[in-house]
Amino acid sequence: MRVIGIDPGSGTTGYGVVERVNNRCRALAWGTVETAGAATYPAALRMIHDGLQTIIQTHQPAFAAVEDIFYAVNPRTSFKLAQSRGAILLSLELAGVPAFAYTPLSIKKSLVGYGRASKEQVREMVRLLLGLRGQEIPIDASDALAAALCHIQSYSARLRIERPGPSQA
Amino acid sequence: MRVIGIDPGSGTTGYGVVERVNNRCRALAWGTVETAGAATYPAALRMIHDGLQTIIQTHQPAFAAVEDIFYAVNPRTSFKLAQSRGAILLSLELAGVPAFAYTPLSIKKSLVGYGRASKEQVREMVRLLLGLRGQEIPIDASDALAAALCHIQSYSARLRIERPGPSQA
Repeated sequence: MRVIGIDPGSGTTGYGVVERVNNRCRALAWGTVETAGAATYPAALRMIHDGLQTIIQTHQPAFAAVEDIFYAVNPRTSFKLAQSRGAILLSLELAGVPAFAYTPLSIKKSLVGYGRASKEQVREMVRLLLGLRGQEIPIDASDALAAALCHIQSYSARLRIERPGPSQA
Repeated sequence: MRVIGIDPGSGTTGYGVVERVNNRCRALAWGTVETAGAATYPAALRMIHDGLQTIIQTHQPAFAAVEDIFYAVNPRTSFKLAQSRGAILLSLELAGVPAFAYTPLSIKKSLVGYGRASKEQVREMVRLLLGLRGQEIPIDASDALAAALCHIQSYSARLRIERPGPSQA
């Protein structure tokens, strides 16, 4: 199973593609889509769209895990974030990738076992789980990889619960 | 000049296409894109996208006028609206239609001369300006037609100001 994790942002959007084979997870790609050079806001949304389409075409993920946005202190900030997130959800739908939403809290709980873990703690856990020790990972990309890992874990958990009969764990 | 006006919504998105020839404006189309039947939220965004693409292909507007969203009393509501608006801006960009933003206040001022006009007053003015007296127009569609008219008016005003020499008005 391949999952693309996405950490929506209005300036920087993090992404990470994680593959799970048997019980091992590995990162196929991670990085950020930057929109600083866009002439207009719609052009910035298109840069995110184009970036995601390229990554999806290259890595063919089966699912997307998109981080939910918390209402920021500044409503203007969370408003911009929400607009980017809407464009990302449309972009995923156009690419035929079903999207699942995870709150930062649930991602942190799933990975670190603690909902108030710092972004650096999340990144360390992402490095550990994906065998990326010492690798340079932007914080937006590690958040995205964490979302992908969270989806894989909850998906596996769901499978275990839904599997009927004696093999049910 | 043809302009598509859009009133973003998470459930109902209003649209209206207005054409200005010489000093007369007429409505080429108006209506709403409904997303009640969508199975998922990304599918709803795609319904809006598909609807807009069809209207744009049919009427070939040169510009889009998109209503700005005010921070609603309920942050969850304005958050959903913002996501829809982001998807709409991406959709317009993918169709190659430059988008301009107008606040409800500036639209009302431009049309009714009064920023606190009711939606019904705006609709009556839209009917008057576009020769649509007695026509059935959903309120979301009349808001969209109003945004298109606002863009046409401010665009004409800009042209008048920028035109150099003795013909400057």
